Amino acid sequence: MKFKVGILGATGMVGQRFIQLLSKHRWFKIEELFASERSANKQYGEVAKWYLQEEIPEDIKEMEVSLLSKDAAKNTDCDLVFSAIPAEIAREIEASFAQHIPVFSNTKTYRMEEDVPLVVPEVNPDHLSLVKIQKENRNWDGFIVTNPNCTTIGLVIPLKPILDSFGITEVNVATMQALSGAGYAGVPSMAILDNVIPFISGEEEKVESEPLKILGSIANGKISYAKFDIFASCNRVMVRDGHLESVFVKTAQDFEIDELTNIWENFKAEPQKLDLPSAPENPIILAKEEDRPQPLFDRDAGKGMSVVVGRIRKKKAKLLKFTCLSHNTIRGAAGASILNAELAYKKKLL
Amino acid sequence: MKFKVGILGATGMVGQRFIQLLSKHRWFKIEELFASERSANKQYGEVAKWYLQEEIPEDIKEMEVSLLSKDAAKNTDCDLVFSAIPAEIAREIEASFAQHIPVFSNTKTYRMEEDVPLVVPEVNPDHLSLVKIQKENRNWDGFIVTNPNCTTIGLVIPLKPILDSFGITEVNVATMQALSGAGYAGVPSMAILDNVIPFISGEEEKVESEPLKILGSIANGKISYAKFDIFASCNRVMVRDGHLESVFVKTAQDFEIDELTNIWENFKAEPQKLDLPSAPENPIILAKEEDRPQPLFDRDAGKGMSVVVGRIRKKKAKLLKFTCLSHNTIRGAAGASILNAELAYKKKLL
Amino acid sequence: MKFKVGILGATGMVGQRFIQLLSKHRWFKIEELFASERSANKQYGEVAKWYLQEEIPEDIKEMEVSLLSKDAAKNTDCDLVFSAIPAEIAREIEASFAQHIPVFSNTKTYRMEEDVPLVVPEVNPDHLSLVKIQKENRNWDGFIVTNPNCTTIGLVIPLKPILDSFGITEVNVATMQALSGAGYAGVPSMAILDNVIPFISGEEEKVESEPLKILGSIANGKISYAKFDIFASCNRVMVRDGHLESVFVKTAQDFEIDELTNIWENFKAEPQKLDLPSAPENPIILAKEEDRPQPLFDRDAGKGMSVVVGRIRKKKAKLLKFTCLSHNTIRGAAGASILNAELAYKKKLL
Amino acid sequence: MKFKVGILGATGMVGQRFIQLLSKHRWFKIEELFASERSANKQYGEVAKWYLQEEIPEDIKEMEVSLLSKDAAKNTDCDLVFSAIPAEIAREIEASFAQHIPVFSNTKTYRMEEDVPLVVPEVNPDHLSLVKIQKENRNWDGFIVTNPNCTTIGLVIPLKPILDSFGITEVNVATMQALSGAGYAGVPSMAILDNVIPFISGEEEKVESEPLKILGSIANGKISYAKFDIFASCNRVMVRDGHLESVFVKTAQDFEIDELTNIWENFKAEPQKLDLPSAPENPIILAKEEDRPQPLFDRDAGKGMSVVVGRIRKKKAKLLKFTCLSHNTIRGAAGASILNAELAYKKKLL
Repeated sequence: MKFKVGILGATGMVGQRFIQLLSKHRWFKIEELFASERSANKQYGEVAKWYLQEEIPEDIKEMEVSLLSKDAAKNTDCDLVFSAIPAEIAREIEASFAQHIPVFSNTKTYRMEEDVPLVVPEVNPDHLSLVKIQKENRNWDGFIVTNPNCTTIGLVIPLKPILDSFGITEVNVATMQALSGAGYAGVPSMAILDNVIPFISGEEEKVESEPLKILGSIANGKISYAKFDIFASCNRVMVRDGHLESVFVKTAQDFEIDELTNIWENFKAEPQKLDLPSAPENPIILAKEEDRPQPLFDRDAGKGMSVVVGRIRKKKAKLLKFTCLSHNTIRGAAGASILNAELAYKKKLL
Repeated sequence: MKFKVGILGATGMVGQRFIQLLSKHRWFKIEELFASERSANKQYGEVAKWYLQEEIPEDIKEMEVSLLSKDAAKNTDCDLVFSAIPAEIAREIEASFAQHIPVFSNTKTYRMEEDVPLVVPEVNPDHLSLVKIQKENRNWDGFIVTNPNCTTIGLVIPLKPILDSFGITEVNVATMQALSGAGYAGVPSMAILDNVIPFISGEEEKVESEPLKILGSIANGKISYAKFDIFASCNRVMVRDGHLESVFVKTAQDFEIDELTNIWENFKAEPQKLDLPSAPENPIILAKEEDRPQPLFDRDAGKGMSVVVGRIRKKKAKLLKFTCLSHNTIRGAAGASILNAELAYKKKLL
Repeated sequence: MKFKVGILGATGMVGQRFIQLLSKHRWFKIEELFASERSANKQYGEVAKWYLQEEIPEDIKEMEVSLLSKDAAKNTDCDLVFSAIPAEIAREIEASFAQHIPVFSNTKTYRMEEDVPLVVPEVNPDHLSLVKIQKENRNWDGFIVTNPNCTTIGLVIPLKPILDSFGITEVNVATMQALSGAGYAGVPSMAILDNVIPFISGEEEKVESEPLKILGSIANGKISYAKFDIFASCNRVMVRDGHLESVFVKTAQDFEIDELTNIWENFKAEPQKLDLPSAPENPIILAKEEDRPQPLFDRDAGKGMSVVVGRIRKKKAKLLKFTCLSHNTIRGAAGASILNAELAYKKKLL
Repeated sequence: MKFKVGILGATGMVGQRFIQLLSKHRWFKIEELFASERSANKQYGEVAKWYLQEEIPEDIKEMEVSLLSKDAAKNTDCDLVFSAIPAEIAREIEASFAQHIPVFSNTKTYRMEEDVPLVVPEVNPDHLSLVKIQKENRNWDGFIVTNPNCTTIGLVIPLKPILDSFGITEVNVATMQALSGAGYAGVPSMAILDNVIPFISGEEEKVESEPLKILGSIANGKISYAKFDIFASCNRVMVRDGHLESVFVKTAQDFEIDELTNIWENFKAEPQKLDLPSAPENPIILAKEEDRPQPLFDRDAGKGMSVVVGRIRKKKAKLLKFTCLSHNTIRGAAGASILNAELAYKKKLL
């Protein structure tokens, strides 16, 4: 018996990735697709401008889209929903669903709220324990679990073992982010051809705050944020998928490069131990060539769920540099939410 | 009366920029074009695959190319030469010219030698005084003056006033570099379409060392390198011209953003005071929009000789971030050498 | 004394080209900028997302935008207007201006109407005589003169001397069109990166019909369309500006290649004879290299007003192939309208 | 028992596709990899710059590369070889192998020779009968079977059923060809960024001649070429893989669009009847959307072995236009040679 799942915001780019990743899922079955008025009550295949190179699944094409509204939650047969809706409407809509069923959200709205877990299963699976408090606080039958921004995910996974082994006092990160992160029509070709845009609205703020919550510790139902500074410079480049990040880390204790690469290579975490369906065999893959990771070749590593790390150099004691890459709409969005739901199931929250 | 100048490596991409910038120069007149055997003794227009959008000057097209060799220096009528030749052959060839006449070189070979000035006229014009020592040391009638790597130049110009006003203790920089930096055929389209390459051979080493010499002080004919660390991560992106850099700076003293922008906006230096022909009115231009500088729109600022700075943020005391852009084959290469020659003239070295 | 001109649709991409081309015009002075409610009554510099690499003229930046409406025509001080407004609103708006003053329109709405001249000054300057009939028919003090679609212009200019010298019985044309033709946000980067789109809505119909009107003859105030078939296949490619067209022509009489290139090279027409300010010295420029014309290098030929022709081959008797390139927002849009207005002035219609 | 196969030119781009397509083949097993001196006697993984997004097979990585030479043929254990070597060396090398074993070549050298079959299995499987004559003529134990140029293949497949049903009197074709067609380093990024290159050396000649041989009939061991003219205009665009072609066809008899699409949709040929391992279920797939086929979405149709056809329009009696797309390194190169070998096996030539 599979869980019946719904997708809120099913026509957008992350919505399409949800469909792609869930259409053959071992535990979940797509039951309902929610979208705005423009698409509601029409066949999905008619209203969605399918943007993935892999073809749209035939059965999905013919599903009738449901209207995304506050009332939708009351009438749905879904056991849980995944959300990829615009931040402006998420507060109300996601709450209306959470009153009844679990919501696994890729939207930023609830991420930083005190009683809402912001989870990357390889990093802070224990934060899921906030769910109990959240349900009490808000008097909900369901709950909301969020995953971070696409850029944050690729960063916190390699940072986690560094923090655990050597401590971190400061991080500078410059990102080179893919077009898909802005949505299908987000970046006009006239804007980006022969260009780089050194600005993504709201992005640096997220990258500078979310990791500190995720890398924080939880005690007595309260998260203590990690205590170091992140300073981010976010750039948009002419790449379809895959966020690349140049990361500079100042560690608390000194380290040897070999020690670090060894730790990274052997890094396994909760999703690997629990053998979650979407868990990559290796959350971190070390690039062997000196000119990798590259978005074109490495974004699909671990079916898009691994972070590929390369260009590792130590400048002097406690000063590290590396480059990491992750697939922004899989590991950084739809896949992240799904992995959270899988973890929640194993933790008996579904 | 104009100085007769030669161009060593005239058919390459930087060589073409030399031609473009010198073809209407007030002080210099192109007298001789030097290239390898493949091109020697043929008309320039036949052998050069002209890559600039602006057309090749008619008179240059018909010039006969001279063979680039050690012996060429003895027979040339040139008063000085500009060099954009491969590093592998520069040691011998540039020295053979410097025995007779001044060489203004864009090639890395001599940059870090003790008695060779590595000059950015807005930053360290006083380093030209090394020329006297160099001529004595090497028993040359001419001399070699070098300019730094294309990425270094865009970085040291905005760093200079920070260093002077607040001091610097650490710099992390991630670059997004243009294709032209690798030469016309340097980056195959198959390698970079839908991609970023997080590696440029030898580049990080240059960016981490050259600025410390340039920002160093000179006393008694000896340069004391600047005393801070630079840590660089160099990336190649799908952009024709214009290197973009995300820079993180730790200052020695604290600063206010307004103070800094004020200093940058009013920054004028030796080339501006001397009104050198290639000097931009403003070495540093502050981008007004939040999403600038962008290579497409800003690389030609100040005829390609200004550095455009934007995205200025302070994270906490003494921690600064900004993004800067400079035209890599003008300010970062041919224009840099020419400005050095102009400065040398005013300093009575020609 | 310059004519005071207005620009309808001043914030769009063609509107920006109008500003660029008119800001230093010998005969015309920009008096008023019209745009939709979103921009009206605000400073142009605030509302226009300036997309051209050349900077926005300072005086234009500070002009207050006027509301584009049917009533605007009554209150304007302009002597004439240029129009680059959406086809949906052009019927009413352009007519409201034409009641009072001349309108030179780049919009398709009126192009194929019987009493509206569709003019390319090098091809059918005599069609301007329709103006008189139009004014009578419609009881207007002003009038509308249109220029064709951007793809049509690049095609009819090289076709004109072929038609005159050898006759034409059939044309097949496949186009590779630039992004700017779809407007600033018309083509998402996600749609065109690593792709070609073999469809442009409504384009093939225009390319197949407009040339026949332009190349038609006029007698007794009536245009007889040219009598041959054009069959077009329109494709969008990843190029900023410059439409490239592979053209196959079947001629009525046989020809020699030399004969044809000679005719093209010496082609001069009314704008050249009248020395109109925007007229290129050569309406047709023959590319010398076998791999040209290329958008990157040739789109700005003749300040964007020349058509560059290359790859000329004859397959057998009466069967010709060539490739032509023209700048779609200069020769193919704003420059076309301006050249029409210049011609109209010399023909004493202003 | 699988046939042992060798790959001549294994490090190049088509060589890599051969490896990818053969590494899990039901009938063939890669036995030997041949390359030039630069790579010979080294591990494949060390010498090949792997350019495909799918990873290099582990066992191939460790194979030692053999030297490609005239003598290699004598010592090989292979039952047959696939060739993707440069045309300059193919005459001698391919012949040296054909003396002993069958050669399935993607190289142009032997394509147009009278006794060498130029085969697309869906179009002219009967031309394989030339093999017998070839072996006699040349006194070879093996033989050479060629497949056409990448652009030709995508064209002849949709032309074949038109020719059979309605006859063809003339074809004009404009191509938009992918970068991979020029080899990994064939097109510098500086040459193609923001550009289209309307020239590919030698390409138009191939596209205009090869289809006439392929579509010709064979009788008494002699091929009568098809009797119509093809006129081609070949362009290079910024696309990784997938050649797009705008095709204009004049038919001998008139046709209805429905009739034609029906014929195309139901087109099955020898490879489908014989159920060859590399045969696509449908050699021709009709695109349903008006803006397709697009390289990005359609190049992998039928695992890269189908031709996708769209934009079908009739202009007037007997005048047809369509757009077709095929994967240039699969259907247009490596896959084509392999399909030929599969056909040869079923025809008992191996």
